[in-house]
Amino acid sequence: MKNPVPEAPLALSLGDPAGIGPELICEAWSRRISEGFPPFFAVGGAGILRAAAERRGLDVPVAIIGDPAEAATVFGDALPVLGTQDGTYRPGKPDEHGAELALASLETATALAVQGKASALVTGPIAKAELAKIGFTFPGQTEFLAAACGMAAEDAVMMLAGPQLRTVPLTVHCAIADVPGRITKELILRRARVVDAAMRRDFGLPAPRIAVCGLNPHAGENGRMGREEIETIAPAIAMLQAEGIGATGPHPADSLFAPHSRGNFDVAIAMYHDQALVPMKALDFDSGVNMTLGLPIVRTSADHGTAFGIAGTGAAHPGATLAAIRMAAEAAARRAKA
Amino acid sequence: MKNPVPEAPLALSLGDPAGIGPELICEAWSRRISEGFPPFFAVGGAGILRAAAERRGLDVPVAIIGDPAEAATVFGDALPVLGTQDGTYRPGKPDEHGAELALASLETATALAVQGKASALVTGPIAKAELAKIGFTFPGQTEFLAAACGMAAEDAVMMLAGPQLRTVPLTVHCAIADVPGRITKELILRRARVVDAAMRRDFGLPAPRIAVCGLNPHAGENGRMGREEIETIAPAIAMLQAEGIGATGPHPADSLFAPHSRGNFDVAIAMYHDQALVPMKALDFDSGVNMTLGLPIVRTSADHGTAFGIAGTGAAHPGATLAAIRMAAEAAARRAKA
Repeated sequence: MKNPVPEAPLALSLGDPAGIGPELICEAWSRRISEGFPPFFAVGGAGILRAAAERRGLDVPVAIIGDPAEAATVFGDALPVLGTQDGTYRPGKPDEHGAELALASLETATALAVQGKASALVTGPIAKAELAKIGFTFPGQTEFLAAACGMAAEDAVMMLAGPQLRTVPLTVHCAIADVPGRITKELILRRARVVDAAMRRDFGLPAPRIAVCGLNPHAGENGRMGREEIETIAPAIAMLQAEGIGATGPHPADSLFAPHSRGNFDVAIAMYHDQALVPMKALDFDSGVNMTLGLPIVRTSADHGTAFGIAGTGAAHPGATLAAIRMAAEAAARRAKA
Repeated sequence: MKNPVPEAPLALSLGDPAGIGPELICEAWSRRISEGFPPFFAVGGAGILRAAAERRGLDVPVAIIGDPAEAATVFGDALPVLGTQDGTYRPGKPDEHGAELALASLETATALAVQGKASALVTGPIAKAELAKIGFTFPGQTEFLAAACGMAAEDAVMMLAGPQLRTVPLTVHCAIADVPGRITKELILRRARVVDAAMRRDFGLPAPRIAVCGLNPHAGENGRMGREEIETIAPAIAMLQAEGIGATGPHPADSLFAPHSRGNFDVAIAMYHDQALVPMKALDFDSGVNMTLGLPIVRTSADHGTAFGIAGTGAAHPGATLAAIRMAAEAAARRAKA
């Protein structure tokens, strides 16, 4: 891992070409001035991007580049696209060729970020089911990225971030019945340390306030509804505090995400998927960003899927993609200065 | 249970006199014209209400009445208070006398609603810990009300309702580890039938749309993360549909509560406490109403507690109390017309 060139552009992977990823890259480029975006480039898919822009009614000239360093020069006048890999734009109709292009784009964009030739990686939405057909065995992009960075998957931490809330689920794709058994002091400590470091490094917070949720209703109400808070969560919080990490809790999740409470913390660690995702999507649906914390590279994505059903119709909301690019750019700038 | 007198007033129980209940009754009365409230009366606590109004800077004359039928006559000029039971206003300082007054008020108000002398019951916030000291053995007001109405506690169903969302938790005060074992087809059927009937009777919806949440992330993703959706929830929904009840799901909870999805259902049945309460409090914190469905009487309350910490300071937000009175009045009017 090299330090990124301070003015290195952001790399955007295409996502599945049958989804809403390509058109949202075009939308983001067309708003580059009003959004104040630094230069970015897409990896592959020039023809797909042209077709997606046309379908969305956007005037987006595309310029093929051979090296990320060329992106800044052309960015003002055209959407830079690295390389000549391409396919056919078939919105709503995913196929194997599209999945191969999406994977190649993700692999190249990741490698450029790891090499420091891109200052950050913003990934487009992929279809796991389509990728599984061509042999992609990772549960999701987060695990792929951990492997690409040579890290343990457990240290690549998914954070959801919107204008009103940032949440980190401690357990993710796991049945509710299995959640209590997976919550350990070690897991809380490991994740919270990654979160704390990321809040400092990527968000510039000198003393991050990390609210840790309880598992049970009312955070167990002193053991009357579950003992995980007493036996596991509270002791882990005490250990974090002893390390100087600004962790508090365990907080009852229902009141923690209420408006008056949301200003009291910078990020919440939730015990399970829906505890983190329900408030995020209820509050910040159109602008939620998925950021992977703990990686040597900056990585964000829009917190939505391929949305095959609306691809090519113009209905896809660009808010999350714009927010993902903004968040990546800010984190990259902070890391470059550090 | 008699049919309520169509023009019978609403009965408001005082709640704990050391909490924010009394001042919010005064606030509601002072806004009776702008809110278009029908006549209501408080049960007991005339002196406490006077003191609470003064402390909040409200001009609220109090008129003691001996019978609910007198409420309508005085309501325009004074807050009607039924009976002479009273205590001392000690905001933030609950004591045994206060708990006794709160319980007496609740008991009398409930009895009047059961007798049809009140068209609905709006309960003020009580402190369970204080009531437990004087021998109140119910887990909460909902269970008390079921007993007072001669019903099984399981058929008194808690619904949280705000301007953006209505949710019913299938399990309530139960550890997460115990939730999967408590979710049965029978429970889903029993609760959903109560919800369906209440949506028709109290909300005037001829074909209620009931969204049933999955238990697991992504509603289990076809069994990859838990099998409760396949084995229990989906079959229960099919049985409800066969009865003509407009149940759908199991829906992934995170996307169900997103803005674009909230318009597709009238009420959501959640599998556990936080799945129902997190989105409610995140979206509608200051105006959330707790309504008990399935009772022979109409019963609502503000979805907040006694808030001893801010009682008497003027900081208590009246939104939930106003909404609880409005919802009770509307349901009572619908029942009177039926």
